[in-house]
Amino acid sequence: MKKAVVLLSGGVDSAVTLFMAMREYECTALVFDYGQKARGELISAQELARAAGVRISLIKIDLPRWGCALLDSEVEIPKGEDVSADGKVPETYVPARNMIFLSFAVSLAETEGARAVFIGAHQLDYSNYPDCRTEFFESFNNMIKVGTKAAAGSQPIRIITPVIDMTKKEIVEQGARLGVPFEYTWSCYDGEKTPCGECESCLFRVAAFKEAGVKDPALKNRD
Amino acid sequence: MKKAVVLLSGGVDSAVTLFMAMREYECTALVFDYGQKARGELISAQELARAAGVRISLIKIDLPRWGCALLDSEVEIPKGEDVSADGKVPETYVPARNMIFLSFAVSLAETEGARAVFIGAHQLDYSNYPDCRTEFFESFNNMIKVGTKAAAGSQPIRIITPVIDMTKKEIVEQGARLGVPFEYTWSCYDGEKTPCGECESCLFRVAAFKEAGVKDPALKNRD
Repeated sequence: MKKAVVLLSGGVDSAVTLFMAMREYECTALVFDYGQKARGELISAQELARAAGVRISLIKIDLPRWGCALLDSEVEIPKGEDVSADGKVPETYVPARNMIFLSFAVSLAETEGARAVFIGAHQLDYSNYPDCRTEFFESFNNMIKVGTKAAAGSQPIRIITPVIDMTKKEIVEQGARLGVPFEYTWSCYDGEKTPCGECESCLFRVAAFKEAGVKDPALKNRD
Repeated sequence: MKKAVVLLSGGVDSAVTLFMAMREYECTALVFDYGQKARGELISAQELARAAGVRISLIKIDLPRWGCALLDSEVEIPKGEDVSADGKVPETYVPARNMIFLSFAVSLAETEGARAVFIGAHQLDYSNYPDCRTEFFESFNNMIKVGTKAAAGSQPIRIITPVIDMTKKEIVEQGARLGVPFEYTWSCYDGEKTPCGECESCLFRVAAFKEAGVKDPALKNRD
């Protein structure tokens, strides 16, 4: 079976992406501990990988201050919708985060002989994050072709974004079809045991499950 | 003064690159502790930044096994020239290392409002490392343009490679002209206090100083 590396954050999008990738690939889940305030994400990512029966590779990054609401304890996480209609980049944007995560994933893929890297980005709901758009991933793939060992001969490593053009509702529907254990997923931008219910990400989740007509199960293993 | 982030490994190439960048930019040196066997590099990078009077940003990365002679304690560092003439990628190639380092540098640049990232890669001596070639850096610059916040409006962040087409001899000459304190630089692929004198990198250093007619000073502050 072909091998793939799947970026797993512990959220709904990456969980569904993992289960989509598993239909065709032997997957390794790549999880980052980069000091995110949402410690619940990290627990979820590991629970999900265990539930899915895939190997997990955890990378710890000790960063100096990164100037973003998701990391900085002095910046408050915005309540409600942070993705503004005027095209501004949201406060929850972490500078070059996907670039960093994908680079590590490519490194792991190269080491393990995997030729695919999956990421659960989707550009409809997050169109103002520059590193969630199709053109970014295409450009990243071009860069991989000239910058890795595989470029010398065999097939290059490729970034694959299976949910990029889905709405959050469609992602939830797809997850329900594939039997994704949503009880282990975490969406909140903050905290560890109980989602705040007020941040952009919590609001998106509630709306998506409602629109999809899927019951959002209670969070498991958080006591 | 314009701001720049400079990748500083502690070796001759990045030291000279830093001093070249300092002529035009207010620099922050970015140093990585990624478990490299050459602990001497890390000491050198910090000594160099101090000698140059620039700020230093240290990122610690805790990686799972990375399958490379420079990191893996079970793989021996090759003696003599590892860069083979037959176009093979050397054993000392760390998968996607420059991709990872540059991504962090872009993130730091974005956070600090810097528009330039300097890296001391040169393709003549290291032509078999895919991530040391001009086409890789050009491709990376294209990816930055679409993947960062600056892409939305202002000038994009750019990777600059001032020594890319120099020989090691020319780099040493340039460093001598700029007063680079070579007594703090570290070239060996291994160890901490005394360079092995036998690895590819040690041999390159000796040859370059000899060809340039520059006296290589003894390593300072290592007792």
